[in-house]
Amino acid sequence: MSAIEDLVTELSRLPTIGKKSALRLTYHLLKQPPEQSKRLAQALATLTDRVRMCDRCFNLTEEPLCAVCRDPRRDSATICVVEEASDIAAIERTGEYRGMYHVLGGRLSPLDGIGPDELTVAALVTRVAAGGIKEVILATNPKLEGEATALYVQEQLASDGVPVSRIALGMPVGGDLEYADGVTIAQAISSRRLMK
Amino acid sequence: MSAIEDLVTELSRLPTIGKKSALRLTYHLLKQPPEQSKRLAQALATLTDRVRMCDRCFNLTEEPLCAVCRDPRRDSATICVVEEASDIAAIERTGEYRGMYHVLGGRLSPLDGIGPDELTVAALVTRVAAGGIKEVILATNPKLEGEATALYVQEQLASDGVPVSRIALGMPVGGDLEYADGVTIAQAISSRRLMK
Repeated sequence: MSAIEDLVTELSRLPTIGKKSALRLTYHLLKQPPEQSKRLAQALATLTDRVRMCDRCFNLTEEPLCAVCRDPRRDSATICVVEEASDIAAIERTGEYRGMYHVLGGRLSPLDGIGPDELTVAALVTRVAAGGIKEVILATNPKLEGEATALYVQEQLASDGVPVSRIALGMPVGGDLEYADGVTIAQAISSRRLMK
Repeated sequence: MSAIEDLVTELSRLPTIGKKSALRLTYHLLKQPPEQSKRLAQALATLTDRVRMCDRCFNLTEEPLCAVCRDPRRDSATICVVEEASDIAAIERTGEYRGMYHVLGGRLSPLDGIGPDELTVAALVTRVAAGGIKEVILATNPKLEGEATALYVQEQLASDGVPVSRIALGMPVGGDLEYADGVTIAQAISSRRLMK
């Protein structure tokens, strides 16, 4: 197989990149100085060598503990539970949350063979049981499987007596009622808050 | 900089890949077996080492001559002139063209500092002057700069007496008059053909 076909094959294994995009990216790289491809190759090669999971929260990190867990200024009494490490990046971008995290490593999905044992729920229960936690926020995605996962995690933590909360559902900020789906609107209405 | 940030930076240098997509791709790779990243890294690293320009037509190749120029079954008397090597891939996918190619390496664009000397027009003139060519098809893109380039190439070849043609402009097959732009419709009408 030729070098071009090789790269096209490898690129099109990535999500959202089809055969055509892969070909376009390859031709783009061929028009750039060779160093650009080399740097990208280097970054890819070192990625999986250096990146591992945080011993405490399963976030991605290059150290035994992730940057959040190592930061002494963060509130260690609050744990925000997410499905994937990429969700942490999304929450951190808001700059609004100052607590800890716990990455489940997915969501319950019996059809895909993902049960409780495939997730890090047991580690979360142990973490909470160790004490010092004032609240667990369940930030799994507001979809069927994410809701089921949140429910399951809540049940597992129930005996501990630590308050467990769920992120709010409603209209996205800047959203348009006209274009929102009915379920979201219904949720936004039923979860309405009294204005003071 | 961390290994993740490194890769995100390098990926987002690519066209159509923004910071968010780069992050998504990186997290995707971290969930795959490490071999996938390694294979992609390998393909990228060898790409620019192995791929070069065809000595005759400036197509991309790993040999002195490209696959088209080496193929004895192709019609060597016809040259299809394109802007980029990627255009050859698009034409080859149709399976309709059996002649040779010539890659200009871009289009005339004075604003971007691309004049005739930046393109391979001189090499094309030499190639045609060497004899044995029955037709030159100009397949530069049907945009302002592509048309100007086609006109310029035609002028350069005029003294040779070899027929120079231009790809047809008109409605795309399967297109809808209702949604086509006026310039295309006007072109389709003025270039109409008598039905026999």
